[in-house]
Amino acid sequence: MAENLSERSHLFQSEQTDLQDTHGNNYHDEDIRNKTKGSTSGEDKKIENGDHIISAKYESLDYDTIENELYQQEGRIKTKSAVWKEFNRWLVMGLVGVITGLIASFIDYMVVQATQLKFGYVHQYIEFCVKNLCLEEPFLIWIAFNAVLVFIGSFLTSFIEPVAAGSGIPQIKCFLNGVKIPHVVRLKTIVCKVLGVICAVAGGLVVGKEGPMIHSGAVVAAGISQGKIDALHLDLKIFEYFRSDTEKRDFVSGGAAAGVSAAFGAPVGGVLFSLEEGASFWNQALTWRIFFASMISTFTLNIVQSYIKDKPWNLSYPGLFNFGSFDKTDYSGFEIPLFVIMGVVGGLIGALFNHINYKLSVFRIRFVKKKWMHVVEAIIVAVLTGTVGYITLYFLNDCQPPKTDEQYDSAQIFCDDGQYSTTSSVLFQTPEESVKKMFHEPPGTYGAETLVVYGICCFLLACWTYGLYVPSGLFIPSLLIGAIWGRLFGMLLNVIFPDMNWVNLEKYSLIGAAAQLGGIVRMTISLTVIIVEASGNITFGLPVMIVLMVAKWIGDLFNEGIYDMHIHLQGVPLLGWEPSSMLSNINAM
Amino acid sequence: MAENLSERSHLFQSEQTDLQDTHGNNYHDEDIRNKTKGSTSGEDKKIENGDHIISAKYESLDYDTIENELYQQEGRIKTKSAVWKEFNRWLVMGLVGVITGLIASFIDYMVVQATQLKFGYVHQYIEFCVKNLCLEEPFLIWIAFNAVLVFIGSFLTSFIEPVAAGSGIPQIKCFLNGVKIPHVVRLKTIVCKVLGVICAVAGGLVVGKEGPMIHSGAVVAAGISQGKIDALHLDLKIFEYFRSDTEKRDFVSGGAAAGVSAAFGAPVGGVLFSLEEGASFWNQALTWRIFFASMISTFTLNIVQSYIKDKPWNLSYPGLFNFGSFDKTDYSGFEIPLFVIMGVVGGLIGALFNHINYKLSVFRIRFVKKKWMHVVEAIIVAVLTGTVGYITLYFLNDCQPPKTDEQYDSAQIFCDDGQYSTTSSVLFQTPEESVKKMFHEPPGTYGAETLVVYGICCFLLACWTYGLYVPSGLFIPSLLIGAIWGRLFGMLLNVIFPDMNWVNLEKYSLIGAAAQLGGIVRMTISLTVIIVEASGNITFGLPVMIVLMVAKWIGDLFNEGIYDMHIHLQGVPLLGWEPSSMLSNINAM
Repeated sequence: MAENLSERSHLFQSEQTDLQDTHGNNYHDEDIRNKTKGSTSGEDKKIENGDHIISAKYESLDYDTIENELYQQEGRIKTKSAVWKEFNRWLVMGLVGVITGLIASFIDYMVVQATQLKFGYVHQYIEFCVKNLCLEEPFLIWIAFNAVLVFIGSFLTSFIEPVAAGSGIPQIKCFLNGVKIPHVVRLKTIVCKVLGVICAVAGGLVVGKEGPMIHSGAVVAAGISQGKIDALHLDLKIFEYFRSDTEKRDFVSGGAAAGVSAAFGAPVGGVLFSLEEGASFWNQALTWRIFFASMISTFTLNIVQSYIKDKPWNLSYPGLFNFGSFDKTDYSGFEIPLFVIMGVVGGLIGALFNHINYKLSVFRIRFVKKKWMHVVEAIIVAVLTGTVGYITLYFLNDCQPPKTDEQYDSAQIFCDDGQYSTTSSVLFQTPEESVKKMFHEPPGTYGAETLVVYGICCFLLACWTYGLYVPSGLFIPSLLIGAIWGRLFGMLLNVIFPDMNWVNLEKYSLIGAAAQLGGIVRMTISLTVIIVEASGNITFGLPVMIVLMVAKWIGDLFNEGIYDMHIHLQGVPLLGWEPSSMLSNINAM
Repeated sequence: MAENLSERSHLFQSEQTDLQDTHGNNYHDEDIRNKTKGSTSGEDKKIENGDHIISAKYESLDYDTIENELYQQEGRIKTKSAVWKEFNRWLVMGLVGVITGLIASFIDYMVVQATQLKFGYVHQYIEFCVKNLCLEEPFLIWIAFNAVLVFIGSFLTSFIEPVAAGSGIPQIKCFLNGVKIPHVVRLKTIVCKVLGVICAVAGGLVVGKEGPMIHSGAVVAAGISQGKIDALHLDLKIFEYFRSDTEKRDFVSGGAAAGVSAAFGAPVGGVLFSLEEGASFWNQALTWRIFFASMISTFTLNIVQSYIKDKPWNLSYPGLFNFGSFDKTDYSGFEIPLFVIMGVVGGLIGALFNHINYKLSVFRIRFVKKKWMHVVEAIIVAVLTGTVGYITLYFLNDCQPPKTDEQYDSAQIFCDDGQYSTTSSVLFQTPEESVKKMFHEPPGTYGAETLVVYGICCFLLACWTYGLYVPSGLFIPSLLIGAIWGRLFGMLLNVIFPDMNWVNLEKYSLIGAAAQLGGIVRMTISLTVIIVEASGNITFGLPVMIVLMVAKWIGDLFNEGIYDMHIHLQGVPLLGWEPSSMLSNINAM
């Protein structure tokens, strides 16, 4: 009954090795034998190279209910408590939603405060130093800020809880599909993740906080549903009937959905995310409850946001990261080929991103093994990101007269009086705000040169950053890269077709962002819904779908989505939906 | 391997009967014995009463792949053709989308033309007769129009293809869950369905065309994927490898999604609809393809619509039935309790609707057995609907000065010069347009009295109509009833809280519509997405979710959703997601 997924995967893998060997491919079965030996002696050997081998440190979760006589007897006796159990399922999901919403609000609030503090200080100092010729001082302050914050974030993940590194989405995907990754839903993990992601984002790394929010939701769900916290030796003795892998998984899928819902204001997207990523199970009643958790999460977050924005209980703030409002929302049939081209571009850039990231990760697995090396690497990236920002700001002083009132507040940095630095308006804020600016700033705000340099820097930095030992989401960097080249694409169209009113930078930067995100993560349905919900605009549904599909098709020609890639890099024995075409006719013995 | 669902259901059902009998409930096991006897003698006995008994005329579909040696050998030989097969799967889904979109466009176009013709004529005649005192003549013309059209629709369904009656959603739900209902995906069915629904809607019945569009999509999918049309003895000898129940089901789920997508401009809603209704299977790759079919369907329809509206290739028309644009989209936290109340009201009215409809259907099954009686009943309802409309128009001459330019075109019928009849503005159009008017007309357009009378008439007529032998969707009538009482609710709030700018009739009528639809059909996730997509507005997502959940909870206290009810009434052996709580610990022998 209860199949051991891990065992199945091993079997599967060994066969694959044999098969591939007879075809002369570079599968290293000696590695796997080392691995197996390692596992029998009880210790986990590190992965020796970047190919697909499987680590023995992962156990499988037991998602099959064993319907033996005892189980049934218990069911017969406790018919009344079934209603109570069902009620508690809803209660737990509701609590998961509330707490996930609160955690997401906390992360967001802290990031915004820390970023404002940092850039407020740096900004003033630069303005001061332009007059007094002390330009190295604000630079040093900037990178010191970054280095200290990232040091904290990286220290937490390297030394205290390594599983808190990255976005957490690959780990959640594994958990939902039956692979137990140690510590993935523990209290220590969520603490490190939450503090770490605040430090990482405020520390200027090209990362988002959305992935960690999703992971946090999952941890909250696991914690509440089990009614105990191992780390504190606290056992509330409640919900003891939920202490099975199956029940826990169901709640975790609700928690992940609540996380998406809070992060993007996308409750339906959250449900679909849980289904798409963890869909080896599916159940109507469960989907219902997942939906409930998502809904409560957005709701909680909206209440908190309404207080932060001084309009208590005005609930029209849709989630933390909404894309802002789009003015012109129509498009014509002849734009479809353009969207397809953008999908292809997104797929190609995404595949390149994944390829570079893969090579970097393999390098990291081989040569950056010590914990202190992880911390040092993170600090190097933080310093580099700060340096690149400062250099861009200095050399690319794309000065323009302000076009909107808001821009009068922007920095004059390195510009003549009455002008402001467009570069600083992108750099001096959280990555989410940068994405929004890319979408909505009026045409002419950014020069093509600024965008090209900024785009390439973002691409390379994001590529290096994802995989560092800091909590780091990938959605925002992907959207940012895409929004940049999408805007460039729109500007190019403006040059080719001048004075055509259908060329609309907002639209093209949104489509570019969607294409890029799709090209990197290769999700489709949930991503479409998330983007549609975050942009608050249903009209772009069809174009978004088209670019996501094209981006996935093109990307899949070259490599897999980045989450699957990292799952394989960690040696997790996760069985895909379908066997590879070569294996489809082979039986497990 | 291949489980006989039908057999399982019989077993299940007999147990249920025994069990319920010991508890003294009104399950009639003698009926079931009659039934079983009937089935052994090879003919299907009619259902004798309205309780849950099972008909033997339904076979089960074989959705399990038999992985025997032969199957595997074939797979081994044909590795190349696997790619071809996969390509064809996409091709078929694309074609399904295109043709479903075209059929939906055709239905819509014909309905609009026929309705305009009818009311244009009646309108002129009334204006003429008000002056010349011949008021019975336009009345007779009106009901003659209705009677003839409905006669055609009803004749097609009663005498030619009875399975084309109703919305088709229950039948598709059965098909997707493994019960073969004879003729449900045949050419004859789609022809009768399409022509019939045009006649029914144009004939003035309180029905929608959305359900039949969904059914049409499913038939198209079955037809194309099998590459043959039995009715025409046409076998194209293509796609022969798709001639299995499993493959056919996969395509049919895509077709149903394409239908929803075309009907509401809700491609994501379509995917979720297929999942929610037919979710005894779930597969990531399939979901992908379903999504593709949905997308193509909306796309095709938008192209056709853009031509009809003389803006070729402007693709911002979102589906056939979009709810129009909502101006004020914010809401506050204190409105949540109001939404909950509306959910409760929707659930209660929905339960009442289902109850009355159930009793009527049982009556119909018992006493209205002959085919000609079905036709006569439909004509009676058509005449009655026309009569009620005319009487309402005459006695409820809620005359008002026009507020918008558009209203100058409305009928002056029975009103003084410079005024127009608000009643006629609701009655003289397709039901969809009535729903839109309920949403968007400015405050004061309709008097409370008009709304109450109109609402009650709609409720009773819709209740009688669903179950008649005509193709008839239930979405639009439900939305209409809900929009009416939602608007009334808003007007009531306006009286209680005068001069408060948060009381907004648009918002409350939309929420009312959602609550009512939820209370009748009891779907949740897919319905939320459909409503959000159709209203083109993400902000209402949370309120819509809340009312749908509350409406479902409240409604479920009394009875089941109307689709499930009709499935049971037809004696279809469909196993629900979960056994009833009394049966959860009993084994099948």
